[in-house]
Amino acid sequence: MLGNTYAGQDCSIARALEVLGERWTLLVLRDALYGVRRFSDFAEHLDIPRAVLTDRLRKLVTHGLLTRTTAGGDGGGAVSYELTEAGRATWPVVHALARWGEAWAPGPAGRAPRLFCHARCGTRLDPAGWCPACKVTPEVADVITSKQVLPSAPRRTDRVAEVLAGQQPHRMLAPI
Amino acid sequence: MLGNTYAGQDCSIARALEVLGERWTLLVLRDALYGVRRFSDFAEHLDIPRAVLTDRLRKLVTHGLLTRTTAGGDGGGAVSYELTEAGRATWPVVHALARWGEAWAPGPAGRAPRLFCHARCGTRLDPAGWCPACKVTPEVADVITSKQVLPSAPRRTDRVAEVLAGQQPHRMLAPI
Repeated sequence: MLGNTYAGQDCSIARALEVLGERWTLLVLRDALYGVRRFSDFAEHLDIPRAVLTDRLRKLVTHGLLTRTTAGGDGGGAVSYELTEAGRATWPVVHALARWGEAWAPGPAGRAPRLFCHARCGTRLDPAGWCPACKVTPEVADVITSKQVLPSAPRRTDRVAEVLAGQQPHRMLAPI
Repeated sequence: MLGNTYAGQDCSIARALEVLGERWTLLVLRDALYGVRRFSDFAEHLDIPRAVLTDRLRKLVTHGLLTRTTAGGDGGGAVSYELTEAGRATWPVVHALARWGEAWAPGPAGRAPRLFCHARCGTRLDPAGWCPACKVTPEVADVITSKQVLPSAPRRTDRVAEVLAGQQPHRMLAPI
């Protein structure tokens, strides 16, 4: 077995992968960056076994990327997972993966890519997450995302997918 | 089992992770971006079983991120792995991971971070890989890397580590 760490690799990339590199973890973070906060929404949109999702969320809380809060404070309310600063700081990684995948691992022909644009001006970010119009790298909270969904294309119908495929761009981090 | 794909996730991030997300793959790419080309150098610097390395290199060749060439062309020469355009295009992902790890998964206290700077001006890249002095996002070939290694710190002594810990900055992609 390969184990869970990269001991012996004195390297910040290896340390990042010890936290982010497990299967599904970066897709959980993707959804959290979209604004997903509820267990049932993660589960439905990711379509993974609940035990796997439970494990990944627990580790992200342990590593300080998510906080787990319970509404009402009496333990009986809805559980919500929110990104911390460390969690929001994964945005450049997630965006870089999105751009690489779009360029080098294209999906079915005819599908439009998901766009990530600067909220202030509407300009599409470059592959490095930089806004060419404003000449800044926006925080993830200042990014909007949209995707042109063709009526004929197969599509997911869960609640998160419906929000993300809506006519209006969705602001990143805005609660779904 | 979770399987090897993210079927059902119509998403470029998921497609990127199908190629890049397997354990050790991004560290193989890290070393290739540093300029490592030989199997024995990858094996020694990554410190992983040869069977795992063989598998990861083979998949990266299959997915078009590396080319495998044999010197001399008669099959008897040294084997070399070189990044393709798709392979070099993983640089923003690898750099974003490095910066996240440095900020949020710090190593032992007192270790200096590995720096990635613009070769033209020597300015450190920002977390998005952008050069604040020249106001451009350099290609990986225009990036130099260096790390201040304290004499007292434990260090790897393989050939790749020695090159990367040298007094002079190392230019990314320059063959090691």
